[in-house]
Amino acid sequence: MEYRFKIRFGDTDAAGIVYYPNFYRWMDEATHEFFQSLGYPTDQLMSKKLATPLVEANCVFKSPGLFNREIVLTTKVEMIREKVFKLIHHFKDGETVLAEGYEVRAWVSLESGKPKAQPIPEDVKKKMEQYLIGGN
Amino acid sequence: MEYRFKIRFGDTDAAGIVYYPNFYRWMDEATHEFFQSLGYPTDQLMSKKLATPLVEANCVFKSPGLFNREIVLTTKVEMIREKVFKLIHHFKDGETVLAEGYEVRAWVSLESGKPKAQPIPEDVKKKMEQYLIGGN
Amino acid sequence: MEYRFKIRFGDTDAAGIVYYPNFYRWMDEATHEFFQSLGYPTDQLMSKKLATPLVEANCVFKSPGLFNREIVLTTKVEMIREKVFKLIHHFKDGETVLAEGYEVRAWVSLESGKPKAQPIPEDVKKKMEQYLIGGN
Amino acid sequence: MEYRFKIRFGDTDAAGIVYYPNFYRWMDEATHEFFQSLGYPTDQLMSKKLATPLVEANCVFKSPGLFNREIVLTTKVEMIREKVFKLIHHFKDGETVLAEGYEVRAWVSLESGKPKAQPIPEDVKKKMEQYLIGGN
Repeated sequence: MEYRFKIRFGDTDAAGIVYYPNFYRWMDEATHEFFQSLGYPTDQLMSKKLATPLVEANCVFKSPGLFNREIVLTTKVEMIREKVFKLIHHFKDGETVLAEGYEVRAWVSLESGKPKAQPIPEDVKKKMEQYLIGGN
Repeated sequence: MEYRFKIRFGDTDAAGIVYYPNFYRWMDEATHEFFQSLGYPTDQLMSKKLATPLVEANCVFKSPGLFNREIVLTTKVEMIREKVFKLIHHFKDGETVLAEGYEVRAWVSLESGKPKAQPIPEDVKKKMEQYLIGGN
Repeated sequence: MEYRFKIRFGDTDAAGIVYYPNFYRWMDEATHEFFQSLGYPTDQLMSKKLATPLVEANCVFKSPGLFNREIVLTTKVEMIREKVFKLIHHFKDGETVLAEGYEVRAWVSLESGKPKAQPIPEDVKKKMEQYLIGGN
Repeated sequence: MEYRFKIRFGDTDAAGIVYYPNFYRWMDEATHEFFQSLGYPTDQLMSKKLATPLVEANCVFKSPGLFNREIVLTTKVEMIREKVFKLIHHFKDGETVLAEGYEVRAWVSLESGKPKAQPIPEDVKKKMEQYLIGGN
């Protein structure tokens, strides 16, 4: 899936380039867009007390992000286990790769008040598998 | 009340100075500190379904905020009505005034699911009045 | 001018609604889009050592902003003086008015190292006047 | 080195816990504090056209961060090479480990306009080695 956004002035810092934690914000935004595109908008998941909190997030920075550039963030699925999954996110400004990141997230229920990992429902899994790279 | 903080690298933008919406973030932080200092930490208010959402916020910018500077933010009460109050916030970097802002907030209950303005409890009012400038 | 954006998960806070300083971030984004739409992208202004720093910003909050909603932010010009101008920004979620804000900004040169207010160039003024409400 | 901070309301999201990209913001803040404590405040490095941009950043999330909690972030050095170094950052809320992260950063000069990796000066290296875990 592709998520397009523009680097905003507030995303930069005094070094004149993107302040790095914003890359994680954009990965999070892409993940929400990803589930929306699969037919599971995260606001609807939340109203059913379902969430996908982070287990781990990583980003490798290749080239600085510049103000006012239009970025294409491509999200794919690298792994789906019973209760966790891994998304990879590639940032490109035209032909230039800005960054490559990943997020490992759990599928959790908040029913009981505190997060409890749950098996990812079969229908969600099936939709996610369309974006799976290589084997599982 | 005084709230002290340092301007962080992520608070700056490509112009090399503080990205302006952060001043409102700091006013919000000072307001939480203010209620904590009065004996009403806002996490405890929240657990009782009480909140102080914004009605209006304003800031006048006098001098740019610079990275790594220690700022003193002084908060006073300008007005207390039945269900709303107004805090003023002054930002100083040493002797330099950076900004002067205010927040008008309502005292609301979230009991019913959606925010409903409530009379500010007498004990809270009394504590707030210690920080009142001039008359009411 | 209209600037459309979606409320992101990271824009919300533990009260379940938009964390208020984000409204100023969106006003800033709209201002950059506004100058871009006039033919003066702010990254090009910056490369000419021109900027439009804030003198004052205000926002009145009418209704809470909710996660995943598409917002229309309409920007108009309320005042143009020799060296300063005022933009007003209205936020709508469908028919619901979320907030009404304004920014007063100066036209400054950074040529000398520190910001110095300059007369707004006639060509810029003329373009801005297209968005002027009522008289000047 | 220890960096202490409080989780602010604006750091939370609609799930009621810390919005995860903030953990990277805090790692960045700790890194700036770390160089300041070594005697190399990053604003002074910047004025000499020196910076430490990110090569990679990672965080593993163990327990949700909660509003108004005081957090202790401990920073150590895991690796120092000629032009890059790796810091590890542990977040604790009392006895609870919230997260464990790392940053790999390069030592760069911005003298020529664009970042160019440089050998880390010997005096800086020596100071950093005080915080080195195990061997190099």
